[in-house]
Amino acid sequence: MKKVLIAGVTGAMGQKAVSLVNSMDNFEVSAGLAPHLTAENKMDYQLGPAVKTYQHLDEIENGIADIWIDFTLPNAVYSDVKFAIDHGMKPIVGTTGLTDDQQAELVQLSREKHVGGLIAPNFGMSAVLLMKFAQEAAKYFPDVEIIEMHHGDKKDAPSGTALSTAKMIDQVRKPHETNPEETESLAGARGGDYHGIKIHAVRLPGYIAHEQVLFGGDGEALTIRQDSFDRQSFMNGVKVALKKVDQLSELVIGLENIL
Amino acid sequence: MKKVLIAGVTGAMGQKAVSLVNSMDNFEVSAGLAPHLTAENKMDYQLGPAVKTYQHLDEIENGIADIWIDFTLPNAVYSDVKFAIDHGMKPIVGTTGLTDDQQAELVQLSREKHVGGLIAPNFGMSAVLLMKFAQEAAKYFPDVEIIEMHHGDKKDAPSGTALSTAKMIDQVRKPHETNPEETESLAGARGGDYHGIKIHAVRLPGYIAHEQVLFGGDGEALTIRQDSFDRQSFMNGVKVALKKVDQLSELVIGLENIL
Amino acid sequence: MKKVLIAGVTGAMGQKAVSLVNSMDNFEVSAGLAPHLTAENKMDYQLGPAVKTYQHLDEIENGIADIWIDFTLPNAVYSDVKFAIDHGMKPIVGTTGLTDDQQAELVQLSREKHVGGLIAPNFGMSAVLLMKFAQEAAKYFPDVEIIEMHHGDKKDAPSGTALSTAKMIDQVRKPHETNPEETESLAGARGGDYHGIKIHAVRLPGYIAHEQVLFGGDGEALTIRQDSFDRQSFMNGVKVALKKVDQLSELVIGLENIL
Amino acid sequence: MKKVLIAGVTGAMGQKAVSLVNSMDNFEVSAGLAPHLTAENKMDYQLGPAVKTYQHLDEIENGIADIWIDFTLPNAVYSDVKFAIDHGMKPIVGTTGLTDDQQAELVQLSREKHVGGLIAPNFGMSAVLLMKFAQEAAKYFPDVEIIEMHHGDKKDAPSGTALSTAKMIDQVRKPHETNPEETESLAGARGGDYHGIKIHAVRLPGYIAHEQVLFGGDGEALTIRQDSFDRQSFMNGVKVALKKVDQLSELVIGLENIL
Repeated sequence: MKKVLIAGVTGAMGQKAVSLVNSMDNFEVSAGLAPHLTAENKMDYQLGPAVKTYQHLDEIENGIADIWIDFTLPNAVYSDVKFAIDHGMKPIVGTTGLTDDQQAELVQLSREKHVGGLIAPNFGMSAVLLMKFAQEAAKYFPDVEIIEMHHGDKKDAPSGTALSTAKMIDQVRKPHETNPEETESLAGARGGDYHGIKIHAVRLPGYIAHEQVLFGGDGEALTIRQDSFDRQSFMNGVKVALKKVDQLSELVIGLENIL
Repeated sequence: MKKVLIAGVTGAMGQKAVSLVNSMDNFEVSAGLAPHLTAENKMDYQLGPAVKTYQHLDEIENGIADIWIDFTLPNAVYSDVKFAIDHGMKPIVGTTGLTDDQQAELVQLSREKHVGGLIAPNFGMSAVLLMKFAQEAAKYFPDVEIIEMHHGDKKDAPSGTALSTAKMIDQVRKPHETNPEETESLAGARGGDYHGIKIHAVRLPGYIAHEQVLFGGDGEALTIRQDSFDRQSFMNGVKVALKKVDQLSELVIGLENIL
Repeated sequence: MKKVLIAGVTGAMGQKAVSLVNSMDNFEVSAGLAPHLTAENKMDYQLGPAVKTYQHLDEIENGIADIWIDFTLPNAVYSDVKFAIDHGMKPIVGTTGLTDDQQAELVQLSREKHVGGLIAPNFGMSAVLLMKFAQEAAKYFPDVEIIEMHHGDKKDAPSGTALSTAKMIDQVRKPHETNPEETESLAGARGGDYHGIKIHAVRLPGYIAHEQVLFGGDGEALTIRQDSFDRQSFMNGVKVALKKVDQLSELVIGLENIL
Repeated sequence: MKKVLIAGVTGAMGQKAVSLVNSMDNFEVSAGLAPHLTAENKMDYQLGPAVKTYQHLDEIENGIADIWIDFTLPNAVYSDVKFAIDHGMKPIVGTTGLTDDQQAELVQLSREKHVGGLIAPNFGMSAVLLMKFAQEAAKYFPDVEIIEMHHGDKKDAPSGTALSTAKMIDQVRKPHETNPEETESLAGARGGDYHGIKIHAVRLPGYIAHEQVLFGGDGEALTIRQDSFDRQSFMNGVKVALKKVDQLSELVIGLENIL
């Protein structure tokens, strides 16, 4: 039985993580960490009698968990992950906010301590598989465009996932030229351009978070699409990470790199 | 039996029109018009022994046809349609190139002569129905974006059909504001803007001519999509026009206006 | 200012209806009806000080409302709507469970009393527009198939909306024959058959409620798709009904019939 | 410069292969084989002065080609491929009709002779990538259904590609149960069933050859779609095979196995 500590256990994602771990054979929640978590209120957060509760890192006992799931806040995640590695707990981290330097330092630490783990900006399996497949398809179909669709309240365009997809495609795609004679009678009609990869962003109420990658070749087309209807989908990726983390010998960045 | 003269009968679209009329009950090709068409080569163009052949307007005999199908060239279409109306033949016109003034004049002439007919920039039924439905849906869903997808060789963006769709939507849509806080980290990501309606143009090899209109509302979405795989699709609209032209009392612009 | 009574006000749909009416100019909630609703707990249901509360039909005062919104239960809806019509309140009914005989009787009553209103099995605008457009497109594209996609827990197939769509298409479609030489190497691959219209039902977790109608013709295709992400979408249709109910002179069945 | 013999060079696919090879650097057509091909008519088939022409296998000279592209007929393919391997030419075979026993025998022969090559029932890159990605995704999303869409004249359902996709998914998918309480009010609505994987076949005029694989998980969906608009698409796969065949040490079955 693998023991799991959940940091940020009282938050929405932390609670989903509790439900996930409780539903899996061979895993159990052994401890929760959150600023206002107490032995008295822990049952409000689906935590059973045997689960330890902590409010601060320095209260955490040695050996309390094998795995550290982190859905906390940008200002807490660095100390959390460092603590976990230092104490031999394998971190599975969905919290954003680590700088590139912090990530590099934590990876280095994980190598020194021989502790595997995963930091993933996106735990949605459909988004991660889309990016992975798009990168592979781009080797054979250099002509590619991206359409992402989000709810009307999203302010920035394109989405981070769409941009990440373009970057992954750009790493493998042969040098590629768009039609030099192309003209726009409405500026922007051909979309945003990332190294020759066009990205189109749709914003409409009702929509949640969706992305399509469209490839075209002589006489054929290939389209990969993912739809995120609910943040519950992140737990699909956390589940995969829980099952694979034992095979990792250091901290890995990106769910796609453990698939 | 309705008699049909086909102008531009030796061209690709003219030939499709011959096949169409030959396949319909109650219609027959009575005459063909084309610069190099002769009694000797007419059988190369699916024209039977009884079909009259003309190279110039002034050769055409009175009463030779009830209906005039026109798939010619921009420089011929005005004289053709005028000739048809003057001689009581109902024009069904797929040739582009008429100016707004010429169209208005021909409509006026058709009223005076009591001759019905149809000028349609697009005879593809799926494109025409898409525009019609999009206009109707926009009354209930003011939040709408357009994505059109064409082969990589298409130079201009957005497509004429996408722009026509936006214009039709704009006629009925309530005043509408896009999210004022919206920002683009890649210029053009949010597409071209026609009176607040975003239009996105995708250009990829393999693709032919496709358009989607996406509507979003609280908790739901409606999408209308049309695919033109082949110009053969234009004959679907010509067929509808042939059946309806007798009910028209003047020259109508746009297939959607006779549906 | 139009006054609205909401029957079933404490339920999930009733509560959405309160939010809707509160957000609209020229409409106000004047009364709520629900078995456990009291003057004391009404503020828990977004009902202000001036809103009347009723637990039973016989408590309802004359003149308390112009419009009656009903999201109750199958066993209550008949008495509710009869009561509303008898007392001159225009019913807008989303509750299911009326028999065909009961519907016919209520329509007859509405004519006698000159009270307009609407009973709609589906208030989702995207679903209703899809059905309306599908019926219209089928006049020009007799070749049509339906694919509906729902969450994995849905037990019956095809969905009621898909079947309704097929029925509406069947009313207008010309007699039509499927390919008589067609064979299935896996039974059911060609879907269910409603009067020659094939219906395919997909059941997958993650999906919510989605329907596509696919039309094909020579060289082209037309697809109409709707996605219901959330029951909130029903309020889009209720809003349309609230604005149009004054123009109705009798009880109408189906939101599509007032668009 | 790699020399290529094209068997079936006068057929539609053979001719596309000529165009492809002519367009590639480092490859040239050195010979053509076809029953009625002669030195006199070879220019009608895009074959230049230096290209050898053969009507029968026994005329073919040693060393005339490094690679043998085969788009012939079911009754010719076995002898063709055997001949190619025996004479040290690497076969790239798009002709169907080999029995399982013949395939196994040819693979065995290729090992003995140390001749690499490829036999592919489908050279469409989009179809092959769809199958490959679908198999990979099924490891993470065991809930999956397939929809294939073809022109109305296709007699059998489901398509061979859809069935192949299901078989590839079935190889990796964990044991999986469909909802046992599921019922069909129209028989066939839930599609054909291949080991618990539902397959739906749409047949409509206008459509060409399209396939979608739909995956669903908690709160998310992943869809992979391919469209074959034209058999020209097969040349995308032949091109990949031409570039990779030198790295193969035996005859491989299936384009996906060399990607």
